[in-house]
This record gives sequence, structure tokens and C-alpha cells, in this order.
Amino acid sequence: MKLGQIGEFGLIARFKEKVFRPEKRVVVGIGDDAAAVRVSSKQLLLLTTDILVEGVHFDRRLQSFWQIGWRAMVANVSDIAAMGGLPSFALVSICLPQTISIEQAEEIYDGMQAVADEHHFQIVGGDTVSSPRDVVISIGLSGDVEEKSLVTRGGARTGDLICVTGELGGSQAGLAMLQLANSDQKSNFASLPQAEWSIVRDRHLRPQPRLKEARLLAQSGQVHAMIDVSDGLAGEVGHIAEQSCVGAEIYREKIPVGSQTQRVARHLGLSVLEFVLHGGEDFELIFTISPAKAAGVIEKVRQKTETPISIIGEVLPAGEGIVLVSPQGNREPLLTEGYRHF
Amino acid sequence: MKLGQIGEFGLIARFKEKVFRPEKRVVVGIGDDAAAVRVSSKQLLLLTTDILVEGVHFDRRLQSFWQIGWRAMVANVSDIAAMGGLPSFALVSICLPQTISIEQAEEIYDGMQAVADEHHFQIVGGDTVSSPRDVVISIGLSGDVEEKSLVTRGGARTGDLICVTGELGGSQAGLAMLQLANSDQKSNFASLPQAEWSIVRDRHLRPQPRLKEARLLAQSGQVHAMIDVSDGLAGEVGHIAEQSCVGAEIYREKIPVGSQTQRVARHLGLSVLEFVLHGGEDFELIFTISPAKAAGVIEKVRQKTETPISIIGEVLPAGEGIVLVSPQGNREPLLTEGYRHF
Repeated sequence: MKLGQIGEFGLIARFKEKVFRPEKRVVVGIGDDAAAVRVSSKQLLLLTTDILVEGVHFDRRLQSFWQIGWRAMVANVSDIAAMGGLPSFALVSICLPQTISIEQAEEIYDGMQAVADEHHFQIVGGDTVSSPRDVVISIGLSGDVEEKSLVTRGGARTGDLICVTGELGGSQAGLAMLQLANSDQKSNFASLPQAEWSIVRDRHLRPQPRLKEARLLAQSGQVHAMIDVSDGLAGEVGHIAEQSCVGAEIYREKIPVGSQTQRVARHLGLSVLEFVLHGGEDFELIFTISPAKAAGVIEKVRQKTETPISIIGEVLPAGEGIVLVSPQGNREPLLTEGYRHF
Repeated sequence: MKLGQIGEFGLIARFKEKVFRPEKRVVVGIGDDAAAVRVSSKQLLLLTTDILVEGVHFDRRLQSFWQIGWRAMVANVSDIAAMGGLPSFALVSICLPQTISIEQAEEIYDGMQAVADEHHFQIVGGDTVSSPRDVVISIGLSGDVEEKSLVTRGGARTGDLICVTGELGGSQAGLAMLQLANSDQKSNFASLPQAEWSIVRDRHLRPQPRLKEARLLAQSGQVHAMIDVSDGLAGEVGHIAEQSCVGAEIYREKIPVGSQTQRVARHLGLSVLEFVLHGGEDFELIFTISPAKAAGVIEKVRQKTETPISIIGEVLPAGEGIVLVSPQGNREPLLTEGYRHF
């Protein structure tokens, strides 16, 4: 075909079609918190999904159905946040065994809808089917992000500071307490002050996604890499290191842990470091930023959200590995395996 | 806040933000084959999802893992097709019990990927988790459609002809044969000519979405309502009637059924009408169109795709109900319940 047959605008249209082939539209594919695809010259569509299975990801003896729905939706919102975006539309699929009542099913939806209401997005569709045995919840969530605000796991640079929002380990401490309260050792549980117990419990049962903080960080234009903590600090730092082709050191005493989490860990005779490194599901944000810009950005986020941000480490060259540094300066390899599903 | 503080462009920006609030962007919400949301002045994003549970939606004794993956993806592509769109990006979540091998899991993905390759879209993310017992597959699929090509279930008009692509009942006949072949009555199965058997079997095991036909129908601008056949003709006509606030009559002898499907039904002593009305999963398209435009559009689709289209009924005023008309002119109510999940 010759140019004359289609003209200049025909050529542009063909070119555009070529450039905008599906493959070409994928800016971030499989392997980040969400995929990012181009919808216009400046705007990207984020797509993420999570599937939760009863007995693996949640336990209805420990959580209400509302809380199960809330938590499932928060996990997806947190993924969109970690890319620097805002959630827009959700698709919700649930498999329900015959033993679940309509009221219980509605509770799951209500918990999900509460997250949508709080963060101004909409559930636009889904699927509800029967299941022989277990409740399974699958959520697909889209989000919007300007291309210039997109933050991936892969942008960390040697010399960056590694930062984390809020506090870590609380969700795992809450889960440990819930399991204890539901076990034969209730007396041990009862001896813990109720105020501390309720704080860590809520960290597990009603987690909050760091959406506002993530947007401020992304829009600052200074954050090089970001991820949300769904599988524990060790695993998430590992993901950033792997995808950015860098190493990292984490200063053990700088990791922010709430006093309640510490007391609960002591009370249970469990390691608070274990909660933090491998516990997961805190939905805090880990990000890297150049040292010159860190103070200003951290202060801005604190002012606008009251959320503290801690500097917990530094990005190293790839050859240096990923290490945990003790207060005495001892260095040991930080295992970078998150929760293993298989 | 006063206008002077933000200026004219500030006001426009605020107004745009208001108009483009998530709720305002939803063109089609819950209750159609897919949701449709606005991404630009002329372009809509389609979002659909399906969740399939082992023992409810598929049976690994009857299907290979590749076929299970293929079928799951086709069901979603068919939903995008029924809205007049083209699939763009898929998210894939799978729950796998420990007893499934990596090779078997890969087969599921390969089946899904084969559909993506054939229809030029991309799998951009997903989630793979362990499951205590059953395989569960959840797919979220996005699509693109120009607003002027969008077709919903809700646009049918009194006097429209009701049309269907291809043939119905084949998938259900194939499933019935597969169940027989896997049962104690294999001798009955063996007596059926293999050529006929393989045709209906493939209708069940390797269904094709009517993507090309759907695009031609949507882009003709003449189709008022459309739906894909996932739950049997009766249920789908019921969905169109309900959402369009109309009635309908279906002429029994006009329903297209392949000769192989008829022979299999006879062989098994089962009702071919039952396969067609309540069997489902043929992934053909049902649409309504004004009588004046039907012949031209049907001929165009046939020319470009070789797919025949049959006129099987007419849209009636709402008060007339939904009826099946026998060759002798007897009218009986057409049950409009598709496959009931609960």
C-alpha cells in the first residue's frame, strides 16, 4: 500500500494503532504490585488482583465476615497505592459454600463496600458462585496514575535511603493474640492489658491502606522505588533489591515497632523481629529516596497526614547483598523470602 | 472558597474533577456482561470477571488442565465481545491444592495464554496461592470499546427481531457425552459415530468466543441489545427482556441446532430443547435488531466471518411476557431461569 492511498492522517492513524498495540501499551507487566497500561499520553491504568482462600488467608473463627471483606479490599487498595495511584473500579468475585447465610455473604460485601466508600471508588461488577467447601474471595481493582507519578519496585538507586511509613509487626502480633484468644490458653490472653491488645488486634482486623501517604510520596517526584508490606519487611526489601538490581542494608534498631507490639511479643514469648521481618500484612509503605530529598519529603508527609516515616536503611550496590545490621554493627544476611504459599 | 482564589481554569478543573468522580464515570454498572467506565470522551473501558470452582464449573476427570484454562478465559472474552468491545488486559488468579503439579498448573496458564494469543490481548498480572482442596480460577479482563459501539442488555425495542449466531446446544451435548464416556455406561458411548462425537465434544472442551462477529454487529450501529449465551437461551432472553423492560417470543423451530447435537441428544434419550434452553456455555451471541436492518447486517457478518445468523423470535411489549411458540402456534411461557448457582 502506498502513502497516497491513505494520506498523512491515515498514516498517523496506522502508526498510532501500531504503537498502541496491546503489548506496546503495557508500561509495567507481571511482577509489581500492579500492572500499568497506557490509556492516554499522560495517564496510566493500574490493574491488580488478589485471591484469598479460607483456611489459608483468613479464618472465620478469628475474623468477622465484614472484617474478611474489609481486609481483602484493603490489600488491593494498598497495591494501587504502592504504584502511586488512586483506586477507581473494583470487580469482586466470591465463592460461597451452602453453609454461609445471605446475611454473612452481605457482610463480606459490606466490608468491601466500606473500603470503597472511604477511598472513593466503586464496585462495578463481580461474580458470586457456589463452592463445595471453602469461602474464596477474588478482587480485581483498577486505578489511575499520571505516568510521571508512577512508582515501581524497580527504580531504587545505590545510595538511596530506605524508608518505611508508620510501624511494622502490629498485624502479626494481633494475629498471634487472636489465635491465642481462640485457643485453650485463654488465661494467658486475659492477662494482657486490654488497651494494648485492642490496638494490635485492630492492626490485624482493620488495617488501613496508606493511600494518602503514597500519593504524596509519588507526586513528590523524588521517590525512586516503592512497595507495600504484604509479606513482611524482609521479603519486600528483597523484591525492591531484585527488581532494581541493587543490594540493601537495614539497621535493625531503626525499624519502627509500636510499644504495644513489643509488649505483646514479650507476653507471648515470641520474637518481635520475626513479626516484622516475616510477618507481613501491615500494609505500610517501603520506599527509597535520595538522601538530599528525604528530609523535605518526610516532613511534608508528616504535616499532611500525621504519619511518621522512619529511615531504616540504605540501598547498596548489587554485589553487597541484602544485610541486617545490628546496633553493634554486626552484619548478617537478611533472608528475603516472604510468606511462601507452597 | 471564592472564584477569585482559583480562577477560571481552576474552576474548570474542579468541575471536571466533579464530573469525572468515579460514580459519574460508570456508564454501565453491575448487571451486564461487563461494566463500562469512561476513560475519555469517546472511549470506554470494559471490566468483567468470572470465578470458576472445581466440582461446580469444571471437572478435571472430563477436561484437561489446558482445556480448563482455555474455557475460563473464553468465558471472559465472550463477555467483552457481548458488550461490543475488544479484550485488552487480563489478570489471572489461581488457587491450587498441593496435589497439583507445576506442569499441571502451567497447563492451565498455557490454555489461558492460547486464548490471549489468538485474540491479541495480554495477561499482565495475577496471583497464585495454595488452596486446601479445590482448584479455583478467577479471571479479570478489561476491554476497549468506543462509546458509540457499546451494546448492553438493556436496549431491546418492541418489534425488534431476536437473532442468534451459529448453533446452540452443542456444548451441553458435548458435556453429556463426556460424562457418559467417564461413567459405567461406556458401551452406550462407544456406539455413537466418532465424527459426531468429536464435534460436540469440541463445542464443550474448546469453545470459541464470537469476538469478530460481535464487533461487526456492534459497529453496524444497528444492534439494540446483545448478550452471550453462558446460561442457556431461556435465561439470556430473560436477561435482555428484564433489562430492556420488554417481552419476547421465541419460535421453537427456528432455534439453530446442529445435526450432531440432535443425534447425540437422541442417542442419549435426552431433550435437545433442554440442552438449548437451559444448557448454556455455547458462547454464541443473542442480539436484537430492527426488522428493516436485519438482513443487511446478517449478510455482512456472514460474508466477513462465514458465521450464519438465525432469526429466532421477536421483541414484544413488556406485558406479553416471554413465550416459546411451537410450530403449530401453541404458546407456552419460557422459563427464564438460567443455571442456578445456589
